[in-house]
Amino acid sequence: MDAAYDAAKVAQPGWAQTPLWKRAELLHKAAALMREHAAPMAAALVAEVAKPAKDAATEVLRSADLISFTAEEGVRRLGEGRALLADSFPGAARSKMSIETRVPLGVVLCVPPFNYPVNLAVSKLGPALIAGNAVVLKPPTQGAGACLHMVACFAAAGFPAGLINTVTGRGAEIGDFMTLHPKVNGISFTGGDTGLEIAKKAAMIPLQMELGGKDCAIVCEDADLDLAAAAIVKGAFSYSGQRCTAVKLVLVLDTVADALVAKVGAKVAKLTVGAPEDNADITALVSPASAKFVEGLAADALAKGALPVAGLTLKREGNLIHPLVLDRVTPDMRLAWEEPFGPVLPIVRVPTVDAAVAHVNASRLALQGCVFSSHIDRALMIADAMSTGTVQINGAPARGPDHFLFAGFRDSGLSSQGVGPSIEFMTKQKSVVINLPSASYATG
Amino acid sequence: MDAAYDAAKVAQPGWAQTPLWKRAELLHKAAALMREHAAPMAAALVAEVAKPAKDAATEVLRSADLISFTAEEGVRRLGEGRALLADSFPGAARSKMSIETRVPLGVVLCVPPFNYPVNLAVSKLGPALIAGNAVVLKPPTQGAGACLHMVACFAAAGFPAGLINTVTGRGAEIGDFMTLHPKVNGISFTGGDTGLEIAKKAAMIPLQMELGGKDCAIVCEDADLDLAAAAIVKGAFSYSGQRCTAVKLVLVLDTVADALVAKVGAKVAKLTVGAPEDNADITALVSPASAKFVEGLAADALAKGALPVAGLTLKREGNLIHPLVLDRVTPDMRLAWEEPFGPVLPIVRVPTVDAAVAHVNASRLALQGCVFSSHIDRALMIADAMSTGTVQINGAPARGPDHFLFAGFRDSGLSSQGVGPSIEFMTKQKSVVINLPSASYATG
Amino acid sequence: MDAAYDAAKVAQPGWAQTPLWKRAELLHKAAALMREHAAPMAAALVAEVAKPAKDAATEVLRSADLISFTAEEGVRRLGEGRALLADSFPGAARSKMSIETRVPLGVVLCVPPFNYPVNLAVSKLGPALIAGNAVVLKPPTQGAGACLHMVACFAAAGFPAGLINTVTGRGAEIGDFMTLHPKVNGISFTGGDTGLEIAKKAAMIPLQMELGGKDCAIVCEDADLDLAAAAIVKGAFSYSGQRCTAVKLVLVLDTVADALVAKVGAKVAKLTVGAPEDNADITALVSPASAKFVEGLAADALAKGALPVAGLTLKREGNLIHPLVLDRVTPDMRLAWEEPFGPVLPIVRVPTVDAAVAHVNASRLALQGCVFSSHIDRALMIADAMSTGTVQINGAPARGPDHFLFAGFRDSGLSSQGVGPSIEFMTKQKSVVINLPSASYATG
Amino acid sequence: MDAAYDAAKVAQPGWAQTPLWKRAELLHKAAALMREHAAPMAAALVAEVAKPAKDAATEVLRSADLISFTAEEGVRRLGEGRALLADSFPGAARSKMSIETRVPLGVVLCVPPFNYPVNLAVSKLGPALIAGNAVVLKPPTQGAGACLHMVACFAAAGFPAGLINTVTGRGAEIGDFMTLHPKVNGISFTGGDTGLEIAKKAAMIPLQMELGGKDCAIVCEDADLDLAAAAIVKGAFSYSGQRCTAVKLVLVLDTVADALVAKVGAKVAKLTVGAPEDNADITALVSPASAKFVEGLAADALAKGALPVAGLTLKREGNLIHPLVLDRVTPDMRLAWEEPFGPVLPIVRVPTVDAAVAHVNASRLALQGCVFSSHIDRALMIADAMSTGTVQINGAPARGPDHFLFAGFRDSGLSSQGVGPSIEFMTKQKSVVINLPSASYATG
Repeated sequence: MDAAYDAAKVAQPGWAQTPLWKRAELLHKAAALMREHAAPMAAALVAEVAKPAKDAATEVLRSADLISFTAEEGVRRLGEGRALLADSFPGAARSKMSIETRVPLGVVLCVPPFNYPVNLAVSKLGPALIAGNAVVLKPPTQGAGACLHMVACFAAAGFPAGLINTVTGRGAEIGDFMTLHPKVNGISFTGGDTGLEIAKKAAMIPLQMELGGKDCAIVCEDADLDLAAAAIVKGAFSYSGQRCTAVKLVLVLDTVADALVAKVGAKVAKLTVGAPEDNADITALVSPASAKFVEGLAADALAKGALPVAGLTLKREGNLIHPLVLDRVTPDMRLAWEEPFGPVLPIVRVPTVDAAVAHVNASRLALQGCVFSSHIDRALMIADAMSTGTVQINGAPARGPDHFLFAGFRDSGLSSQGVGPSIEFMTKQKSVVINLPSASYATG
Repeated sequence: MDAAYDAAKVAQPGWAQTPLWKRAELLHKAAALMREHAAPMAAALVAEVAKPAKDAATEVLRSADLISFTAEEGVRRLGEGRALLADSFPGAARSKMSIETRVPLGVVLCVPPFNYPVNLAVSKLGPALIAGNAVVLKPPTQGAGACLHMVACFAAAGFPAGLINTVTGRGAEIGDFMTLHPKVNGISFTGGDTGLEIAKKAAMIPLQMELGGKDCAIVCEDADLDLAAAAIVKGAFSYSGQRCTAVKLVLVLDTVADALVAKVGAKVAKLTVGAPEDNADITALVSPASAKFVEGLAADALAKGALPVAGLTLKREGNLIHPLVLDRVTPDMRLAWEEPFGPVLPIVRVPTVDAAVAHVNASRLALQGCVFSSHIDRALMIADAMSTGTVQINGAPARGPDHFLFAGFRDSGLSSQGVGPSIEFMTKQKSVVINLPSASYATG
Repeated sequence: MDAAYDAAKVAQPGWAQTPLWKRAELLHKAAALMREHAAPMAAALVAEVAKPAKDAATEVLRSADLISFTAEEGVRRLGEGRALLADSFPGAARSKMSIETRVPLGVVLCVPPFNYPVNLAVSKLGPALIAGNAVVLKPPTQGAGACLHMVACFAAAGFPAGLINTVTGRGAEIGDFMTLHPKVNGISFTGGDTGLEIAKKAAMIPLQMELGGKDCAIVCEDADLDLAAAAIVKGAFSYSGQRCTAVKLVLVLDTVADALVAKVGAKVAKLTVGAPEDNADITALVSPASAKFVEGLAADALAKGALPVAGLTLKREGNLIHPLVLDRVTPDMRLAWEEPFGPVLPIVRVPTVDAAVAHVNASRLALQGCVFSSHIDRALMIADAMSTGTVQINGAPARGPDHFLFAGFRDSGLSSQGVGPSIEFMTKQKSVVINLPSASYATG
Repeated sequence: MDAAYDAAKVAQPGWAQTPLWKRAELLHKAAALMREHAAPMAAALVAEVAKPAKDAATEVLRSADLISFTAEEGVRRLGEGRALLADSFPGAARSKMSIETRVPLGVVLCVPPFNYPVNLAVSKLGPALIAGNAVVLKPPTQGAGACLHMVACFAAAGFPAGLINTVTGRGAEIGDFMTLHPKVNGISFTGGDTGLEIAKKAAMIPLQMELGGKDCAIVCEDADLDLAAAAIVKGAFSYSGQRCTAVKLVLVLDTVADALVAKVGAKVAKLTVGAPEDNADITALVSPASAKFVEGLAADALAKGALPVAGLTLKREGNLIHPLVLDRVTPDMRLAWEEPFGPVLPIVRVPTVDAAVAHVNASRLALQGCVFSSHIDRALMIADAMSTGTVQINGAPARGPDHFLFAGFRDSGLSSQGVGPSIEFMTKQKSVVINLPSASYATG
């Protein structure tokens, strides 16, 4: 690990002195290589993290697009600064100009999670590299294969030796050493509550954290229920719910609850369960611990009176949890607040929109949320009232398109993401002030 | 007139070399003096252009706010430039930096119209002055008194001699001389089709034109009809319709037309007609020619089968036109396309939203428009489809708040307005490129 | 010509409804095809406008880069708008939000000049197309071949039929018809004083004009004279001086004039004269009229006492003018003010920097200028004092890198160029204001 | 303390729902009250922290200006968001729009230091309040009186009860409780290494830290030595060196070292030593511990061979340290690296610019730096090479003008300051994504 950091430290200054267009050119090459070698990477995703084959292929290709987009975005954001004149401020003469630009952090530690080991790695690598940083990458234990293949594409693209360094291992063992290393100048982490521990230790190191989510869907009386049901089911059960932006709670107004539950239940009943190679909708969760955790949450809710819908039942086979929708979930159940990261969707019926918003705002997790309403005033005002990083109006929570802002409130995150904000995170602002002996103006 | 331009040319460079905060300070002083001396200015507006007393007072105070806001906006927009690095572009080395700032145009001719002689004067003077320009102001013939009083406040605030110059006279006589003057470096004009003539003559002089409007209100089946009726009546009849952003045509869906017409008619029937000193809703128009023009438009529509609503009738007493709503206006009537600038509101019934949008987009005037619909998708998609500078969703067209963009398409305007865009209009961009002997980077 | 405009008008809306990334994709394809077919285009440039072969090849490749860069810039500038809240303005409630975006102008007439018929065509086509416009292109009479070949690359890339339309012919014959056509919604013109005529006729049509230049180089006492001489000679004689950003006048401080003149003369004496195929530095000018005009300017200066340096003499052979540097040029000579667009460089000796700046600022042409000084204060303060669109410090005037601002003052131009400003020119601003029934805030 | 946080939590949402212009209005009132009551606040600064009387008055007035400037800046930065369209990203349809705005953090803990207890308090309070936050303020033990007086001005201005809460006490006793409080949502701290401890504890709480500085002045061979000496002496000895941006080390090229040292020594010899009421240049340091620390640093240097210049000697009288310049300081001395925060200036002679830059970049503190050189290339390239948050060219390090970026690298800081960046720090980004059923475009 010391070797990785040492190599990064040595390689960084030369890379930061490479023209922006050349940095972009190498990133475009890496993207092209990833498109060319998508198949083995996708296969690794199927094998390592049980991602349905089609989604695995999509992840790789979408990652290549993301690298290219990031390169071009960086060329612009990093090639432009601000020039401030002194005489805006009362009493000051126009004899000073401050030129503010963005400079690299130095060496950035990138830690992506198991559920998108390729995509969430390049969402860190791309911004770090275009901004002139060196990188130490710690892939997730499951997903490391896909991640390493991706790094091989970068290597083949011709990035300088030592610029991108990969260290594998269990976070529990090497995490502290990596995050507390004296040569680390920035950390970009996506994952769960482990992030809270990292944040405690990092002190003066800039942090970009995307941790858990408990994304709620508020369904209003005037919602298009078919649209809402479709978005909720897709949002909750894609990749078996193992997504930070999965719909993890439905808050539906009493008056339309029966109708919505019926529509949701009917759709969930049709989901296929099986192997990722067969593109089953629901596949095995990433670990026995995860599956048992989800099972426990559902069992707690059932014990406290939640009702399974559409004939669905709680069923675990090894790591595989069958899809389950639980109606009449109440705030005393763990499922009302905790993040299952599995195919179990709780529905809470609420008497008023205010009650729904209050539930959302009481959650310590606040990544995204969504509201389904056809009324323009209601939709926008509920979106304002919901205290989450993003609120989707009439759509499921989603990370993309990747240039959109992506940022969680409270325990869900620190520092913004999205292509532009991530590039900015990977830099610090520097200013050069030119002092003249007297005021100077261009008079037109 | 030559003297005005000569004085302006002489005064400008020194003003452009005055610190931004000092320019702002003087504008704040002028605003304070306008607040202090609001009464005589408002009285002039009542006397000269028959503006209801309350509205006249509002115009003056709103103008003072606008001056202050413009000063602070300018301090920021003009105190900041961009610094571009060369190596964003393929093949270029980071050995060049381009520093782009905004510099004054020089001498700007400002021509406000009669209907807001104070407000639309300061909306030009403020941006011109904070940006370092000298000004030649040509007030409207009616409204010149209020305008001159306003200029007196600027003079009392301590602006340098020669910086603000006022030339009164009929546009027909002095217009050409003023717009073609070799010392003019920019023209900001608000008015009617006269602007089209100015545009033909101005050649290389930057133009900010706000000309006529024929703002349409589309009322959908799912609109809140009470809200729509209230907005339409206020929008159409305030200051007797003598506003560029007045609602000048209603396009209502057949299915809700009867209901809307009834609501609009009921409200219009209650409008008071009389003297501006008494705050009557409807007062005399600015000139006999205007009143006769409006009368002619209405007569044409009536002759072709338009129906007056709510027992209202076409009635002209000198310059005073009584309020009139005409239902079942059709595209063969002049009122469907021409701008009355008086208290006559035509209503066209349409079978579909597409028909309504097509009417809007066929108009040569395209300042603002509005759509009334409660459905979020419909409202936004109609707003996209309407080809006008601004589309108001569920509100009447409006110039303000003044920091919002204000810009007309087609014959309605050239160059954007609003506080920020107006400040930018009053400047040109200049760049200074520093060439270094070799590439230079800040590496972090 | 009507057919071209009609086709453009029909094709435009569909193109404007094409996703930004797809528009960019087609532009990238056109750029790739231009790189692939660079040879015949370069050959046409050699044959049609006597451009040295190496420069001709560079023009084509640089144009391909420009298209790609423009595509990516447009994806960003046009995919982002501003959302303004009402309560910034005194008295307003946060119940309105104005969403401002950029929409296409419609049909844009693009008129590039003979000297860069490919590059200055794509500098207009690229921004126009990425912004969703249709285009009518009028290539220069000389250079039309290269231009048509370039258009063929666009056609082969798969742009929709009718989107890009080319009309060839003499400007004197078809110019008025084209610029006054009722379907034109914007004009981007690069050329000489013809542009002033277009500007007079265009009325309400947005104009982007780049007309003549008389770029001056001020050489201070503390300048690096070798650097200055090298930049001046390259700046003045590249492509035989047929460049808007050519150095067209040197203003040198008396104390260093002899030294500078000697260095400049020595370099110019080494320039080769001959055929473009052989990469001669100096080749035939574009027309007999041009050559005679240049000859006349030089003869006037010689008659009034200007001194040829380094044994150079005024010599015209057909369209070919031999390179000439004239020392001791004075303000009474035409060469002190007029733009030769040929290989003749006048040098004016000045007693002070102020005199040099005064000469620059008295010129009606004000595209770029440059100042050579090693002292940071002096260089920056002279750059402020020079009233030209761009001032280069310690470098020759230059259009590129293409993302830098490019804009002339006075008779040199109207509206800014450069990749970003050109994209903005090709659009107009539109706002959609959402009105809510009451204030709404996100409280954190 | 709990009461303070509770009150803040209760008051914040209502404040965040107050129109921006009203928040600004209250800040302007507070500023006006501070100008009115400047005298007692300045007197407190003299008495509490021995600030020279004139500087104390300046601090208060400059703080009032800062509050006003911050209010107007916030009105603009917080009243504007970005609207991103989906179709910028490959594959996406324009059926989504993301509207990104800034929302308050919630409750912000503000901790200013003793040296500018008023100015560095309002530099936190202003941005926090305009952004809609509630505040808990912990004044420095010395300076609390001035700070409380300032808070009284805010209270008198009419801010809601509970919005601004002040808690006094020793940081050592109450610091942990305050920074770890569950209701804190952001911390803005200015001070010394205590900040490093806070950073370790804060975990997911956004931090704005300005800690120590060791600002170096590089003096090149071609520097204007009079200018450099004047800036260095003012920079090093103002307020007896108790400023984060004081010049704390001079790195002078050997060839001009003698000349510079002579000029610096001559100026320092003229500094007056005495009481703050008498506007003495050098006054007592803030505490016995500080004075002894400074004495120790100087003694260490003297013991290792540093040479006092101009007949100055190391002399401590209680808290008072007489001004001292030490020549021939070497890297083995503590003074070469540690921050004295007192009137002792070390000078290191260097053989090359590279050696000077290397010293700067080896320091763990990296707030500002400055370079004195008249040569434009050298000055700019050294500024790039110096790895500090800000580099001043030909001027002393300085925090202001306050709208300029102010940010330290490495142990000197986290998150940027300056009016704009501080307002941004006091907010988090939120997005609302509107999903439409199909793509929608404005076609122009």
